[in-house]
Order: sequence, then structure tokens, then C-alpha cells
Amino acid sequence: MAQASDQTLPKDTLYFPAKDREFLEPHLPQKDGLDSNKCFATLTFATSLDSQLALSPGAPTQLSGPQSKAMTHYLRFRHDAIMIGVGTAVADNPSLNCRLEGAGGYGGSDLIGQPRPVIIDPTARWDFSEKNKIFVLCREGRGKAPYIITGEQNPPAEQKKILEEHGGKFITLGIKTSDIGSHRLDWSELLQTLKAEGLDSVMIEGGGQVINSLLDPVFQPLIDSIIVTIAPTWLGQGGVVVSPSRQVDEHGKPRAAARLKEAKWYPFGEDVVLCGRVKL
Amino acid sequence: MAQASDQTLPKDTLYFPAKDREFLEPHLPQKDGLDSNKCFATLTFATSLDSQLALSPGAPTQLSGPQSKAMTHYLRFRHDAIMIGVGTAVADNPSLNCRLEGAGGYGGSDLIGQPRPVIIDPTARWDFSEKNKIFVLCREGRGKAPYIITGEQNPPAEQKKILEEHGGKFITLGIKTSDIGSHRLDWSELLQTLKAEGLDSVMIEGGGQVINSLLDPVFQPLIDSIIVTIAPTWLGQGGVVVSPSRQVDEHGKPRAAARLKEAKWYPFGEDVVLCGRVKL
Repeated sequence: MAQASDQTLPKDTLYFPAKDREFLEPHLPQKDGLDSNKCFATLTFATSLDSQLALSPGAPTQLSGPQSKAMTHYLRFRHDAIMIGVGTAVADNPSLNCRLEGAGGYGGSDLIGQPRPVIIDPTARWDFSEKNKIFVLCREGRGKAPYIITGEQNPPAEQKKILEEHGGKFITLGIKTSDIGSHRLDWSELLQTLKAEGLDSVMIEGGGQVINSLLDPVFQPLIDSIIVTIAPTWLGQGGVVVSPSRQVDEHGKPRAAARLKEAKWYPFGEDVVLCGRVKL
Repeated sequence: MAQASDQTLPKDTLYFPAKDREFLEPHLPQKDGLDSNKCFATLTFATSLDSQLALSPGAPTQLSGPQSKAMTHYLRFRHDAIMIGVGTAVADNPSLNCRLEGAGGYGGSDLIGQPRPVIIDPTARWDFSEKNKIFVLCREGRGKAPYIITGEQNPPAEQKKILEEHGGKFITLGIKTSDIGSHRLDWSELLQTLKAEGLDSVMIEGGGQVINSLLDPVFQPLIDSIIVTIAPTWLGQGGVVVSPSRQVDEHGKPRAAARLKEAKWYPFGEDVVLCGRVKL
């Protein structure tokens, strides 16, 4: 477990009390329940009542309360990896580390509890430098360098160098790109690859495209756990919406795209946390 | 209070136990807290996780569980009126009565607990006959005839006759119709009119247009209580979405359209019930 050091904790350290951790336990990866071939996948995100992640792409939108924020960092502590799409990486310059008290760099020794950032970037378009937050934190011992999943056989040399100097890397997978430029990722292959990299569990945080893709019935079987925080706010039309693509039955009639089983709702501060598994 | 009669209760009678009623009490109209000029307005509806009322307009979509359905009828019991837009009336051929045990026609005497249906139909386009469910129930003593709010000075004579034979009527209000055919209702005038009709409270059930209109900051002050049921399902893109129109701040930047204050979440069967008031 994490060991508090003598150093003063960073000001942005987050605290998540033991009493709040209990309800999450059944929804987290457990050591004795892991698949030997596939990384355990938790889909987790926060939305408004109108199912939006943000007011617009790249607009940081404070949705959930402080308790929910600390919860997110506890979830990061409990997963080996944290995954986002390149859109979010480009828009947000994210930290993708764990600021929970006891995590490495936040009172904990080494990099304990720091998840491996995994960024899905089919065309290797993320134009980062070593000044990006994620690498600054890495050099400060407060986070790990990212693995970037790409379809490019030869990603840019400069980016490759930065990644590798910090302990990260590019991982090239087969990613099909359609005529209209949309990408079709084999999520199953991806989760197997992460497992082979020694990552037993991943929390998938966004953005909208990644989440909507995984909620498609084709990929739902790959999701082991879903944890959604909902804030009592309507953002209003025009934001970044979580809603999977339309599904129809054998007669062409629309039907629900995804339903949770064993759904549990936990009121949490001003928000509610919904935990469950996809009903297949 | 309702008095059970000797008659056998209709098969579709609903039961809502006393223990489930408690949490709703603070969110319901109270006799000593009513405005003397304006009808108490409760906005209540059920959505999917992707904030949809239905898979498509007019497609009855089973979203919430049986407990939530009984709750809806308890809410109907506790309001003097129940309001919907004409789109829902045309699409659904709705009953708009209260099937709770103890309500008139469901074990209760007379029309106790039966809310007055109020339908907003700016152009009096709802082409009902006396065979519509709402009038059948009326003749069976299981519901009241509707009041139809319209902008038409001379609504169709045939409809007027049916309405009045059942104890309902048209109420003509000033409703502005724009060039593109959208209607702008003065909700404030409407709620004052209902009060003048002896209706102290109204629950507003839908559909999407009515709800989105009332969640607009201009009209939010008129809403006294909000009760939203959320089911753990994603319907998928293309359904009937609850999301108010986009709002921007003084610099033209998008901002949240509506936020609840004193928000309370009540897990309820598979669903969650969110109660609160609009934060002004």
C-alpha cells in the first residue's frame, strides 16, 4: 500500500475517505477475477442530465462536484491504465495522473497507484512536446509516460523520442480508416495488447467518440464495468453528447442501444453515481 | 381521502406503498404553500441515460420500471391537473388519468384524485373523437375530460361539442406563431389561467418540446418542482431528446442552461428519481 513520506503533499492532492470507497468495490477489477487474455475494462465518465460531457469539444466543463472528482482519482489509483481518445488529448492537454493522497508523488513512494496513460491516436496526429503536462508530471515523478495506440507504422521520430525518453512508447495496431476518415479500431485486439503489456485493468474516460463506440452492441461484451457520474445540470443543446449509434431490431424498428444490468445508483454529494454492467 | 368501494378494482389498478411516498413529499404541492395567483407547476418526466423520452416521436417506449410507473400515477393523484403538448396527444392517444388504488374509478368514490388533463394545442389540430381513450375513461367515471389550451378564437365545433359533453372545454389564450410555424406560449399567463380555473397544481409530463421550452431560463422561474426519473438504458441517437436550447454568457461563450438546487437522488428499483428545484 501507499506510504506517506515526510515531504509536504502537493497542494492539489485529493482525499477520498474510506467510507466512500466501499460502494465502488464490487465494480472494480479484483485480482482473482481477471481474464488471462484481456485487460479488464471499466468505462467511466461524468455527464450532465442531457448526457453531455462538455459544452463543446475542448471546453473544460465543471460538471460534477469535488467528491466526484476525488472519486475519479481513486478509480485511477485502482486501475493499471487510463485511456482516452486523441481528441481529448489535443483539446485538454490532460494530466492523466492520480492525485490521490498516497499515490506516487502525492505522499506515496515511487509511482505507486499511478496509472499508465493510453491514448488512442489512429493517425499519430497528437503534436505534443515535452512541455505537455503529462511529461512534466512524468519528470516530477507524479505520473507515467503514455503509451500511444496508433495505426501508423512509422510515427513521427521527434514524438517517438520524447515518448521513449520518458518511458512511454508508440504501439502500432491495425486500424482501418474509412473513405470518410473515420477510424475503426479492433477494441478486442487493443485490450489483448494492453494485457500483453502487463496492464491488467484500464479505465476508459473518454471522449465522446470513444465512449459511444464502446457502447455499440458489437463492443459492449468487452466492457467489464460501467461507472457513470451524473450531475444535476442541463448543459443545453450543442455540446459533446454521449449516446451510442441507433440500433434497430430485425424489422428495422429502433430499439434501445444498451441497457445496464445489476444497475446500482449511489447518491454522492450533489451528483449520482451509476454502476453496473452492460446487459448482453 | 379515497374510500375503497365494494366493486372489484380494474385489472390495471396500480399500487404505490406508503413507504415509497415519503421521499416525494417535500417536492409536492402543499396546501399552505400555494401561490394565490399561479398554479403550482411540477415538471416531471422519465428519460434514458442519453436524456431521451422515446425512441422516436409517437413510439411508446418502456423506459422506467413498474415502480416508477406507479409513482407517476401517485403524482397524478397529488396534482389537480396534468399537462402535455399536442404532439404527445396526437401520437399517444393518452389516458391521462390516475389508476392509483383509491382514485375515482379505481376503488375511490366520484372522481377523487383524478387530475384534469390540460392539453396545449396552439392551432387546435388534435383531431379527436369520442372514441379516444380520454373520453372513454371519462364516460366510465375513471378520469376527467380535458381542457384544451389553444390560440384559436374559434376551435372546430365538433370537437368543442365532444369536449363540452364530457365536461371539458377549449380555453383560448394569446399564442404567438412565428414565420416558421413555431409557437410561443406565455407560460406565466397559462399558469395564472389554470389557477383562475380552480386548478391549484399541475404536473407537466411532456413531450420534448414542452419540457425543453420550460427549461429555458426565461421560464425556469415558473417551475416550482422538478421530478425526473432516469432509467439505466441508452436509447441511442435519433430519439426524442430533453435538452434545453443553448445558452451563452455575456461574452457569447456557452454556459449551462439549467442547474438544480437542493437536488436529491432517490434510487428506486432499477431507476433513480431526481428531485429538486431550478437554481435561478
